[in-house]
Amino acid sequence: MSAHRVVFTPSGKRGEFPDGTSLLAAARTLGVDLDSVCGGRGICGRCQVDVAEGAFAKHAIRSGPDHLTPWGEVEQRYADKRGPFAAKRRLGCQARICGDLVIDVPPESQVHRQVVRKRAETRAIEIDPVVRLHYVEVAEPDMHDPSSDFRRLQQALSQQWGLAETNADLVTLAGLQKTLRAGGWKVTAALRKDRDIVAVTPGFTERAYGVAIDVGSTTIAAHLCDLVSGEVVASCGAMNPQIRFGEDLMSRVSYVMMNPGGDKELTRTVREAMDNLIGEAAREAGVARSEILEVTLVGNPIMHHLVLGLDPTELGGAPFALTIDGAYEARARELGLDVAPGAFAYALPCIAGHVGADTAGVVLSEGPHLKDELTLLVDVGTNAEIVFGARERLLACSSPTGPAFEGAQVSCGQRAAPGAIERVRIDRLNLEPRFKVIGCDHWSDEPGFAEATANLGVTGVCGSGIIEAIAEMFLSGIVSEDGVIDGELAERTKRVEQVGRTFAYVLSEGAPRLLIYQMDVRAIQLAKAALYAGAKLLIGRAGAAPERITLAGAFGSHIDPLYAMTLGLIPDCDLAKVASAGNAAGTGARIALLNLAARTEIEGVARRIEKIETAIEPAFQRHFVAAMAFPNKEDAFPNLAKRIDLPARKEPASERGRRRRRAASADTG
Amino acid sequence: MSAHRVVFTPSGKRGEFPDGTSLLAAARTLGVDLDSVCGGRGICGRCQVDVAEGAFAKHAIRSGPDHLTPWGEVEQRYADKRGPFAAKRRLGCQARICGDLVIDVPPESQVHRQVVRKRAETRAIEIDPVVRLHYVEVAEPDMHDPSSDFRRLQQALSQQWGLAETNADLVTLAGLQKTLRAGGWKVTAALRKDRDIVAVTPGFTERAYGVAIDVGSTTIAAHLCDLVSGEVVASCGAMNPQIRFGEDLMSRVSYVMMNPGGDKELTRTVREAMDNLIGEAAREAGVARSEILEVTLVGNPIMHHLVLGLDPTELGGAPFALTIDGAYEARARELGLDVAPGAFAYALPCIAGHVGADTAGVVLSEGPHLKDELTLLVDVGTNAEIVFGARERLLACSSPTGPAFEGAQVSCGQRAAPGAIERVRIDRLNLEPRFKVIGCDHWSDEPGFAEATANLGVTGVCGSGIIEAIAEMFLSGIVSEDGVIDGELAERTKRVEQVGRTFAYVLSEGAPRLLIYQMDVRAIQLAKAALYAGAKLLIGRAGAAPERITLAGAFGSHIDPLYAMTLGLIPDCDLAKVASAGNAAGTGARIALLNLAARTEIEGVARRIEKIETAIEPAFQRHFVAAMAFPNKEDAFPNLAKRIDLPARKEPASERGRRRRRAASADTG
Repeated sequence: MSAHRVVFTPSGKRGEFPDGTSLLAAARTLGVDLDSVCGGRGICGRCQVDVAEGAFAKHAIRSGPDHLTPWGEVEQRYADKRGPFAAKRRLGCQARICGDLVIDVPPESQVHRQVVRKRAETRAIEIDPVVRLHYVEVAEPDMHDPSSDFRRLQQALSQQWGLAETNADLVTLAGLQKTLRAGGWKVTAALRKDRDIVAVTPGFTERAYGVAIDVGSTTIAAHLCDLVSGEVVASCGAMNPQIRFGEDLMSRVSYVMMNPGGDKELTRTVREAMDNLIGEAAREAGVARSEILEVTLVGNPIMHHLVLGLDPTELGGAPFALTIDGAYEARARELGLDVAPGAFAYALPCIAGHVGADTAGVVLSEGPHLKDELTLLVDVGTNAEIVFGARERLLACSSPTGPAFEGAQVSCGQRAAPGAIERVRIDRLNLEPRFKVIGCDHWSDEPGFAEATANLGVTGVCGSGIIEAIAEMFLSGIVSEDGVIDGELAERTKRVEQVGRTFAYVLSEGAPRLLIYQMDVRAIQLAKAALYAGAKLLIGRAGAAPERITLAGAFGSHIDPLYAMTLGLIPDCDLAKVASAGNAAGTGARIALLNLAARTEIEGVARRIEKIETAIEPAFQRHFVAAMAFPNKEDAFPNLAKRIDLPARKEPASERGRRRRRAASADTG
Repeated sequence: MSAHRVVFTPSGKRGEFPDGTSLLAAARTLGVDLDSVCGGRGICGRCQVDVAEGAFAKHAIRSGPDHLTPWGEVEQRYADKRGPFAAKRRLGCQARICGDLVIDVPPESQVHRQVVRKRAETRAIEIDPVVRLHYVEVAEPDMHDPSSDFRRLQQALSQQWGLAETNADLVTLAGLQKTLRAGGWKVTAALRKDRDIVAVTPGFTERAYGVAIDVGSTTIAAHLCDLVSGEVVASCGAMNPQIRFGEDLMSRVSYVMMNPGGDKELTRTVREAMDNLIGEAAREAGVARSEILEVTLVGNPIMHHLVLGLDPTELGGAPFALTIDGAYEARARELGLDVAPGAFAYALPCIAGHVGADTAGVVLSEGPHLKDELTLLVDVGTNAEIVFGARERLLACSSPTGPAFEGAQVSCGQRAAPGAIERVRIDRLNLEPRFKVIGCDHWSDEPGFAEATANLGVTGVCGSGIIEAIAEMFLSGIVSEDGVIDGELAERTKRVEQVGRTFAYVLSEGAPRLLIYQMDVRAIQLAKAALYAGAKLLIGRAGAAPERITLAGAFGSHIDPLYAMTLGLIPDCDLAKVASAGNAAGTGARIALLNLAARTEIEGVARRIEKIETAIEPAFQRHFVAAMAFPNKEDAFPNLAKRIDLPARKEPASERGRRRRRAASADTG
């Protein structure tokens, strides 16, 4: 039999094949990444390839469409059903080699496709899903050979796909006999890691979905993804209903400690919310729950434990011992999730007692471990999770920022919702403010603002608004670098008014009046000092300054990096390299959903991250005290100074007083 | 450092060890089978050994108690608590080598102990349980190294026991933190196959139990076993509550077919009954449910499927396709069984659509695959499962005997219960019967019988009683070899009376009167013919006669082999080699519970057994017809003839009639 040379591009893999070999068989022999769900039956159309025409000197090959068997009946049937083929395009399973060939595998025919991501600095997601579909034709039962339906399915998977070690759990097996008969002994099996059969569907199907869930203390988000294209087909979010047991995490842990069985109640509540979101996303995208074949989960340690049904009590106090820290897999139904009967849920690893699977998701999304650039990753919530480092070494810690950045503990604070002030500017001369509220495109001093906000109202100030208000107060001299509202200004402007023994700044005269009190400034100082001190601890340990700062999470995606740096939330850095990553934890969950290797990757990285416990680091307290000042007492901010005029460092009022007293005592002495 | 020679008996393993090596460490190095749960801490006392004294020429060793370090504090503490040691007995973990030694490991200190069984012909069960206990001391959490409690448990198992690949499911993990703290970081972990942690107990424990369950269509039996000693600590039985959905299996399958969701109802019902039995056995033995670490299951294919939650509909008709046939493992809680949180249930393999895990249990118990002798195994229920063969080759089939042997389809039939006739003798001359009933030690013609049965009553005839009644009727000439009750005898005795066009034999004149009708004889003929034909099919296929016949199951343990052979239920065989095996299926489940290797063994044997489907074997019908006669028309019974006088083979009445008619026509012709 004559043999022909075949080169596959873009891989460059090549080989010689006997006359009549199908292109799919040739690709498989060479390990070329060419997809197929139906196993070469001309049903799925995933193995489409392009034939190159002409002489290829590099390969010493002349290739052309006539070096393949003619366009056939099966291809025509597929084209009739799904639309005509591009010129020189063929089904790899049908076209057979009868001459030398150069065959191009287009991106859409590769299993390991890439999903493009929006931001330039992040890597593309390569599709390599943990669950893949395999169409099989199963032998019918025969009284002369009484093997079970499941054994014959296993044999079909072994013979038709080379999958020799397959398994299924009882829930999947329970429907097997009906499915096999409904499909006329032709079924599509969804296999996880080539081993666990998580679903069996009658006949041929190419629908495979997964859902990535980010369980935050405040909100839960579910992203339903097509496991083939990698696209997000629906995203849904909801408040975490556990909020009724306590706004912040520690009050929920307290609830568990004080109410025996309370952890089970919290677990049930969060699982129900997750399951409802899955249902909502599935409805929105027109996907059946049974088509959801895999779930991934991220969340802070307490949410992670509650979702898995693990009592979080120990996380409520030192030494903050996790029950488990490694990545964990369980059947999704064990978590109360109604998806494909045998589907698994994969929870990303936790890094430490305070640094959870959400941070692991951020790391996976942002990939500091893949860069030479020293990246500081900050995920701000009730705690700030901070990761610092690069390829060689990564450090992580959690800082107790408290909920001030989320609008709590601030008198006029509120959640980011319509009516909340989110942007603030203060005139450097007359100290008059102007602002923008969520839900209105105008600034408060622009015509039309009053009309536009008539219904909304100006109800409060959200986290990013508070940051900007205090930063502008600082830049305009209303607040000193020590965070003291200058009472002397009350003589110059009605915007500063006395409240008891301290002063406040009147941000809005509407109803309600919105004032930034001295204690609000203090709350932000405490929060930002904790954040900064945590970052400083890691930077000190690493012995080098950050070259890039990425702000993750809802808060991080709304604050203006310039103001964040002005207040000293984050250390000095080239402002062009300070950016928001949006919901990076959720993106991490999505990457883990779509790419099996990413799981191994984050499991390894999570283990080698050096964990710093701020509570027992003596340096943390020193950094914290220095970081109370705006932007900071210990450190210079050269990059920031290039962009804005920081107020000249004044002597603190207390110092002045002490000096005055000293002078006075000298007089009397 | 000086080295000493140590020989362990009975294994004969030997080696040289440095001064100061503990005997346990030496045994482990050599792979000597010496038990330990506490890992050498002198707590469990499982590693007790005996020191031999004297010169051992064979080993060129002089051994003595003084070649070990002196009796120590830890040993004394153990002895104070558990009672004094025998002379020259030491704790292997405490006694250290300081001279040449011959050390005997007594049977009770071996992991692989043997459990003695009652019958001589069955092999002993070697203890090699799938779940073993390991006492560990776990590192406490440390803020400087925030690893999880589970990771530190895994590390302890790895460091202290060399178990590097351990895992636990969420239900086990859920209690972990409390258990570790309750035990002061000392816990006993129950590991399955050295991998799955199925339970963790605070402190040290050596209590480990398992339960073997035999799920019959009529009754369910649970045997609670000590996994260390292998002893049965409690056995409980109950009626299968599914009986309310149909007495026999096929009516239950019909119920499922006619009632959507009916399979779930049947599954729930049988699982509840199993769980209740487990509770009852645990209470009886003073064992906590959480101490039950493994479950094994046997049952016919329909029960097997229903217990596993698999719809048995396909088993109700040809081609009788099983969902699964291989052995199957699932978490016991998935089957609704309340035992240790992470415990597994192991169902033995099914052999074919009609030959279930119960037959696999019988095979495991009786071990025909380990013998050179050709064994015929018969397990009689609604179907008779028959296995025939020896080491080289095993064949199996199922015969549709129907429920006649269980007392159903027989007019005076009843279950084996107090008041039922179980033994029958008929006087060869006057044709008067005498009998014994269950619950009374006297024969009916003995003094005291009337008084003893005054309360019981004589309520019916159980399976073994019917066999004996009909066999005695045959032996006394009341019934012909064709199964016809001889009406001419009605002239000679009141015991034979006419009923319509046929005759009956009056077994008891009490209230109720108990009669064996012609149709009862027919029912037994049909049942025994099916059984015999199945056996004959296998014998024919094997080409050799059985050298041993073993009757398994409740019916099999009550019938007298002599009468069974007289009626031709079973083929001819040396009567000394026909025996009952009792509940062999349950014993098989118990072996699988106690011995891991037995599982691999039966899985392999079940696969290689050749399955014969009687329904499609043309020879079956022929054998069946011939087997209607007593004992059989095709075969001679030389072994039987040695023991009893079989009636001379008469010409059948129909033949006689035909001959008479022929003679008459000759007269007229």
